[in-house]
Amino acid sequence: MAEVILLNFWPSIFGMRATIALEEKGVKYEYIEEDVINNKSPLLLEMNPVNKTIPVLIHNDKPVCESINIVHYIDEVWSDKNPFLPSDPYERSQALFWADFIETKLCVCGRRVWITKGEELEATNKEFTELLKTLQSELGDKPYFGGDKFGFVDILMIGFYSWFPAYEKFGNFSMESECSKLMVWGKRCMERESVAKALPDPEKVIGYVLLLKKLYGNE
Amino acid sequence: MAEVILLNFWPSIFGMRATIALEEKGVKYEYIEEDVINNKSPLLLEMNPVNKTIPVLIHNDKPVCESINIVHYIDEVWSDKNPFLPSDPYERSQALFWADFIETKLCVCGRRVWITKGEELEATNKEFTELLKTLQSELGDKPYFGGDKFGFVDILMIGFYSWFPAYEKFGNFSMESECSKLMVWGKRCMERESVAKALPDPEKVIGYVLLLKKLYGNE
Repeated sequence: MAEVILLNFWPSIFGMRATIALEEKGVKYEYIEEDVINNKSPLLLEMNPVNKTIPVLIHNDKPVCESINIVHYIDEVWSDKNPFLPSDPYERSQALFWADFIETKLCVCGRRVWITKGEELEATNKEFTELLKTLQSELGDKPYFGGDKFGFVDILMIGFYSWFPAYEKFGNFSMESECSKLMVWGKRCMERESVAKALPDPEKVIGYVLLLKKLYGNE
Repeated sequence: MAEVILLNFWPSIFGMRATIALEEKGVKYEYIEEDVINNKSPLLLEMNPVNKTIPVLIHNDKPVCESINIVHYIDEVWSDKNPFLPSDPYERSQALFWADFIETKLCVCGRRVWITKGEELEATNKEFTELLKTLQSELGDKPYFGGDKFGFVDILMIGFYSWFPAYEKFGNFSMESECSKLMVWGKRCMERESVAKALPDPEKVIGYVLLLKKLYGNE
């Protein structure tokens, strides 16, 4: 086995985080695409027996699971280049607070956009927009969530940029009018090689969401 | 203001984590009890405007929010005594994996026990028991989740010990027959002054859960 392997699935915002982190650190790795919808590989099930989800980072034959954890681990192991988290404990705690916000609020609410209809979908869209606005306030006038540097929170959040057109299409709202600063931030991040490499074509994401809605019986 | 203040609410498993972490490190702090059900204080709303939840650690007038984040922060700032997280990045990633498991699976499922009825409650209880069994497997024959030492995962998990009688009563299952090793681990942790001080009387928790069920219209 290669020293570093990433088990991934191209539309996953969680998977994009791991790819970006490895690319930012200049780590060489083997990329293995998983068919998480129809056929999870024996390697994935062996390496992540508890959650059975991607991404999984396999480093020296040992697995690290859950994307925030993976980004954290990559930052600690390859610590000599492009630190993601601030060195000050208080600033670090603030970055980890927003990581938790994105994970437990934005990601959870975002998933509901594909499985709800009618009034419930309207309420979900409203909540999703409010969460994005809260994140936009946190960004403020800084170029990145990490301040002058592309950092931990940027890595966790940027995958959404490739999903925004799908949210706009199925959630019926305009990112440009609701969250224009987040769009400017997204465009800025896309100038980075790591991000451009990890993020899929938004049109392909829309196709994937159509498949998701079919799977959820919510066409 | 005192140098270290903890805004808390006595039945909260999240709040217990912060108390235990401070006690383990021997940090002097001012404890402020919040009435989170009826009357959140202006200080809480000022210090945690995004989530408006306890616990909040205020250190030198600055807030740290979300319990896992607080325990992490306490471990980093008062690093000279009783480290909670292992020093090795891989071992640390494993502890953070189980932290995420407890937070996103056990806590979320546990909350559903109070708001569901009938068949849905039965399915929730089954899922909750399976999650506890997975954690019990992870504990294995070690004295603590942290190995020989009471560590990060122990701090995040031990609050449940004071809630187990409530889960047994309303979820209709026996911890002793389903998860006897977790009960032995719980008793072991209770011998620590920090834990004994932070955990409430389980009978009081049952009373609080009755109030919760009433609030959720699920009597």
